[in-house]
Amino acid sequence: MLHHRDLSPDECLAHLREAEVGRMAVSTPGGPHIVPLTYVLHDGRVVVRTSPWSIVGTHAREGLVAFEVDALDVASRSGWSVVVRGRGEFVTDPAQLAAVRECWPVPWAAGTRTLVVALPTTDVTGRSFGASSVVHSA
Amino acid sequence: MLHHRDLSPDECLAHLREAEVGRMAVSTPGGPHIVPLTYVLHDGRVVVRTSPWSIVGTHAREGLVAFEVDALDVASRSGWSVVVRGRGEFVTDPAQLAAVRECWPVPWAAGTRTLVVALPTTDVTGRSFGASSVVHSA
Repeated sequence: MLHHRDLSPDECLAHLREAEVGRMAVSTPGGPHIVPLTYVLHDGRVVVRTSPWSIVGTHAREGLVAFEVDALDVASRSGWSVVVRGRGEFVTDPAQLAAVRECWPVPWAAGTRTLVVALPTTDVTGRSFGASSVVHSA
Repeated sequence: MLHHRDLSPDECLAHLREAEVGRMAVSTPGGPHIVPLTYVLHDGRVVVRTSPWSIVGTHAREGLVAFEVDALDVASRSGWSVVVRGRGEFVTDPAQLAAVRECWPVPWAAGTRTLVVALPTTDVTGRSFGASSVVHSA
């Protein structure tokens, strides 16, 4: 994927709205780690659910994280990738939790994913790849 | 994706052999970063190409990195994810470079991606997701 074009913040947010799965990178004492997570874009933040004792639950609190979403087509060597970087914030306010739950694509099952982490999209960058570099979805 | 099953190292390596694109996480002074990259599995190592002044080129030398490959199907809430963690090694030996180039799926175009980084797969973990947790590809 040699050719690429930088995406505008608006283009990045449009991609973040259309996708449902991304990958969060956190720093751990043993180096970076990556975890795939479903998410929603809510109130200008990427919001994920995890368990308090998971990799993200352990290392994302007040820590810097990166969240990447992409659609990459190997056959045509084209696609896009968007990365949000910043400080993960734990969402504990009941009204905010209810609002996030409301826009989640599937009902929240009872379980261990009781921790909700939000990442502001103030630092968002993205690229489209391909010969034309105008691909907006795979 | 509530249900999951841990994959064996052999299952992880099988997935690494079948995919062509992954995401590398590196630690930077500004926090973790994630970059999508095409790769090959060569001689037990994940091998990627980048430019010396890229994010990976700048932060992967002798640094701890994580490389993630996945196939996640949102509709069926199933799929798999494999993560390799370790120290990125710059490949400079001409014979090794020739061997990597030989197994690359497309010819290497002239350009700026002159830096070849290899990550041993000694630390590899993976999970399959889904109600059955036996999904091996999306």
